[in-house]
Amino acid sequence: MVNVSYKVLFALAIWTMTTEVFPTGAERTNCHLAKYKSLPPRELEAFKKAKDKFEDMMLLSDQKCSTRIFHRNWEVKELSIVILVEKELDFTTNMLENIEDPSLSKVLSRPPEILTQIRGDLRDCTRQTHSHRHSRKLNNWLQNFHESKETETPGCLEASVILNLFRLLNEDLRCTAYMELCV
Amino acid sequence: MVNVSYKVLFALAIWTMTTEVFPTGAERTNCHLAKYKSLPPRELEAFKKAKDKFEDMMLLSDQKCSTRIFHRNWEVKELSIVILVEKELDFTTNMLENIEDPSLSKVLSRPPEILTQIRGDLRDCTRQTHSHRHSRKLNNWLQNFHESKETETPGCLEASVILNLFRLLNEDLRCTAYMELCV
Repeated sequence: MVNVSYKVLFALAIWTMTTEVFPTGAERTNCHLAKYKSLPPRELEAFKKAKDKFEDMMLLSDQKCSTRIFHRNWEVKELSIVILVEKELDFTTNMLENIEDPSLSKVLSRPPEILTQIRGDLRDCTRQTHSHRHSRKLNNWLQNFHESKETETPGCLEASVILNLFRLLNEDLRCTAYMELCV
Repeated sequence: MVNVSYKVLFALAIWTMTTEVFPTGAERTNCHLAKYKSLPPRELEAFKKAKDKFEDMMLLSDQKCSTRIFHRNWEVKELSIVILVEKELDFTTNMLENIEDPSLSKVLSRPPEILTQIRGDLRDCTRQTHSHRHSRKLNNWLQNFHESKETETPGCLEASVILNLFRLLNEDLRCTAYMELCV
């Protein structure tokens, strides 16, 4: 009886060690997004401050757009949207880093840092997705997004990015963090 | 001993009845705003939905302004701003009731109802304030606000009202609800 118990313990120890060193779920090895199911309130507050400050002044300049840059007519839970989130993050980080209004420089320092960190964590997840064929819906979204970035005015792009901040963080990133459990 | 207890109870009962019917603090009689220190999450959610939906489309139309309609360069805690909140509420309710976009009609039904109720509760408070002279800062704000309403485009006014929603509810109304304790 004692022998059997030792054998079970030994087998469990070996299983634990091997699952740490050689994970069985290869496609999830480098894709750890669970922490983004909910961002810390302090980080969200940094985005809120930036958005409030921007909104307080945005109507004084022209931000009219001819398209809705981040628009989609499907739910994020329908698709694997890690590629979409990566594109949104790239563009948003880049835009926030390049808004030149000096009155915004203080509130706009932290958000790009947070987004860059998230983007780093997403990189390995998107590497896995790159080899997959995207759905037609996602391809259309990527194409429209690319075209809008090329054709819209800087004012439109800045305002679109700011107004989309919380959808990116609270819906898209969150959904990606929940993986198949996003509902 | 029993007699004394009855007398105390009787006195307490009379005190309770009279304070209900004839409140001692005359200037606070009809001004009950404490409930607006924090709006219920369900009500805030109605405003969030309306704001999100509006923001999703607002950049497709022209909303450029020549002034910041609700702007002030002083803190609300510096003054008694019940008059300011009343003016903001009047204008915001009116604007929300008259946004004609059919895609917004569903999300814009509840917010004006809530604002109308708040405005009703504010009415008696502002009646008391009407007899007071306003500070120069407040007078300037009221004058600029009035001029902006007359001169700005409908697109600017709608966007300004939507972008100001949470400052109105979470800062201005809240501060008024806290009265002299607003810090």
